[in-house]
Amino acid sequence: MTFDALWSDLADVGRDARRGGFSRHGFDDAELTMREWFTAEAVRRGLDVDTDRNGNLWAWWGAPGPDAVVTGSHLDSVPGGGAFDGPLGVVSALLAVDTLRAQGFRPGRPFAIAVFAEEEGGRFGLPCLGSRLLTGATTPERALALRDPSGVGLAEAVARAGLDVDRIGPDADLLARIGTFVELHVEQGRGLVDLDAPVGLAESILAHGRWRLTFTGEGNHAGSTAIGDRRDPMVPAAAAVLAARRTASTVDGSRATVGRIVPNPGGTNVVASTVDVWLDARALSTSDTRGVVDGIVAAARAAAADEGCGLAVREESYTDTVVFDPVLRDRLALALGPVPVLPTGAGHDAGILAAHVPTAMVFVRNPTGVSHAPAEHAERDDCLAGVTALAAVLTDLAS
Amino acid sequence: MTFDALWSDLADVGRDARRGGFSRHGFDDAELTMREWFTAEAVRRGLDVDTDRNGNLWAWWGAPGPDAVVTGSHLDSVPGGGAFDGPLGVVSALLAVDTLRAQGFRPGRPFAIAVFAEEEGGRFGLPCLGSRLLTGATTPERALALRDPSGVGLAEAVARAGLDVDRIGPDADLLARIGTFVELHVEQGRGLVDLDAPVGLAESILAHGRWRLTFTGEGNHAGSTAIGDRRDPMVPAAAAVLAARRTASTVDGSRATVGRIVPNPGGTNVVASTVDVWLDARALSTSDTRGVVDGIVAAARAAAADEGCGLAVREESYTDTVVFDPVLRDRLALALGPVPVLPTGAGHDAGILAAHVPTAMVFVRNPTGVSHAPAEHAERDDCLAGVTALAAVLTDLAS
Repeated sequence: MTFDALWSDLADVGRDARRGGFSRHGFDDAELTMREWFTAEAVRRGLDVDTDRNGNLWAWWGAPGPDAVVTGSHLDSVPGGGAFDGPLGVVSALLAVDTLRAQGFRPGRPFAIAVFAEEEGGRFGLPCLGSRLLTGATTPERALALRDPSGVGLAEAVARAGLDVDRIGPDADLLARIGTFVELHVEQGRGLVDLDAPVGLAESILAHGRWRLTFTGEGNHAGSTAIGDRRDPMVPAAAAVLAARRTASTVDGSRATVGRIVPNPGGTNVVASTVDVWLDARALSTSDTRGVVDGIVAAARAAAADEGCGLAVREESYTDTVVFDPVLRDRLALALGPVPVLPTGAGHDAGILAAHVPTAMVFVRNPTGVSHAPAEHAERDDCLAGVTALAAVLTDLAS
Repeated sequence: MTFDALWSDLADVGRDARRGGFSRHGFDDAELTMREWFTAEAVRRGLDVDTDRNGNLWAWWGAPGPDAVVTGSHLDSVPGGGAFDGPLGVVSALLAVDTLRAQGFRPGRPFAIAVFAEEEGGRFGLPCLGSRLLTGATTPERALALRDPSGVGLAEAVARAGLDVDRIGPDADLLARIGTFVELHVEQGRGLVDLDAPVGLAESILAHGRWRLTFTGEGNHAGSTAIGDRRDPMVPAAAAVLAARRTASTVDGSRATVGRIVPNPGGTNVVASTVDVWLDARALSTSDTRGVVDGIVAAARAAAADEGCGLAVREESYTDTVVFDPVLRDRLALALGPVPVLPTGAGHDAGILAAHVPTAMVFVRNPTGVSHAPAEHAERDDCLAGVTALAAVLTDLAS
């Protein structure tokens, strides 16, 4: 089966007419359709598909066992995301299996394709939800307390998807089976295009996390409340957005972003009573990241005090800097020939698994560097080069 | 029927568990329930209820006719609004009819209670939608192009409510029947409480309008996009919020508010591609209001240019300063005895009708001044004083 045929299967799943691009979120209808598609494609290849207790899919080539070579990625997206972030790694894994089969290869070790649940955190706010639960990076209690923007709890969503809510949580037996994990992913910056290379390997991931800043003021009428009588939480919320930009600009290699802000009640002629601001912050080290976040929170707190507003800050997720296993990376570089090795600012399930097993990532060139947006793209030839590279890596690892 | 009985009928309609307070918006289930309640109460009093071509309700005491005395208000709310803004005027109108009946009064002129549709613009964005359409202040073409936040068009919503979409628009015959309009309303500031008076009369309404500022940048990944490579529309949007506060602070009597802001796609780990900011601005005169808005837009445009973003500005509604008919106000003051006369920053259907017929407003004391929020309140005794005042005014006008 060709790349084009597999890719076109996904072209209409979870299209977001309002935002553009795709909205496929953990355990929603679009993501469940993606999972059904993956299961059918895996079964068509004679793979045995299991759903683990946290909703991740495992397609085994031969008997499951220890020291397995695992490849894969995720099928969910950010709201209004691109086509490649996630699905490219899954499609490439299926096609790499086809390539290996066509070459008469039979794995000498257990071998699986994995699809992780809710990698983007686009629905429940916690990125890498499936891999965090599997590895124990997040407790089931914390995960089950999560709610989506419409108020649906994770427990309800996973039950609807057929999972046993009581079994959500760390899975040491499954984790112990993973010997090596390799995730192929579209690059989310301009590293490869600037180096004129179709594929590359990941070196590291920035330390990164999400913080929710809740500003509390006094809801009131936008027309009849004099400026001097206001305690408007939108004012310090806006100051926090500008502080994020200002602070990140002063710390080398750091990023701070507000992409989501929700005033309550959200009426045009209403002074808001509360405003939630989600801060995404990343930097080269934990100390740099904490420095950026502390600087933004201090500015937000001062602005809130000036307006007579309260501020509560909650860390929703945090992942320290990840440096991928250098021994594994050197082995992959040997299998691929000379390819660039790049750092990235984007989090991945590979970053979560890297704390437990040797892990590597293969990047495919992104001609504009745009990601998490409908314009995200990879050329077909580069996708095929990615499949070839992944097949070479898997042949080496699973022999 | 007592105030308490009528008031308690409405206590559970359209409660908003998420925001607090009530969310009752034009032609939604909650507002339709409120309309059914009103119709039943009017019919119980022997009034004949008509729905006009724009969805406003008219309950006639006796035969409809020219030079009618009309009182009433609206039953919709802002998102997460209080119980009093709107319904107090409608409940008081029904109880004033009871009072007049109990006194053996029979109107010497045509007499009606009116309930206007979508006064807050909480669903379709255009405040005083029903009265604007009736009077021709808004064209049917413009109104029918409106969509609610979930994408439902006004045409679909009014058709569902049983209206003929083709008949939406100005209604000169109905407008010509209104001889005088009196709207009772909870005060939305601290004027009466500071003057220690339970009721008062309106002098004027600030010039006011709504503008939608759409900032356009480049959607991208929040982790892998370096700060220097961003065109993030959230940054100038935040600058616009702060400019609104700063600019309104420099123009005496003016207000500028951002209570609604929507980044698209709205993901935590996503640099937004666009951000919509709704600006509510009001001032003593049209020139002051334009000055405030121009100042804010200039600051927003400069911030957008700094970020490499675009900015489009659209006026969604505008109403010039309203000075209520002084002759009518003096007549009401005579009927009520000495009561305060107050300006307000809040828009009302009475402000729209004032361009066509002698119009007045009776305010009921608000002990905290809070409005458009769940904490909005009026004491029961003050509500009863409002009914007594409205009955006195109507007796005088309709004799």
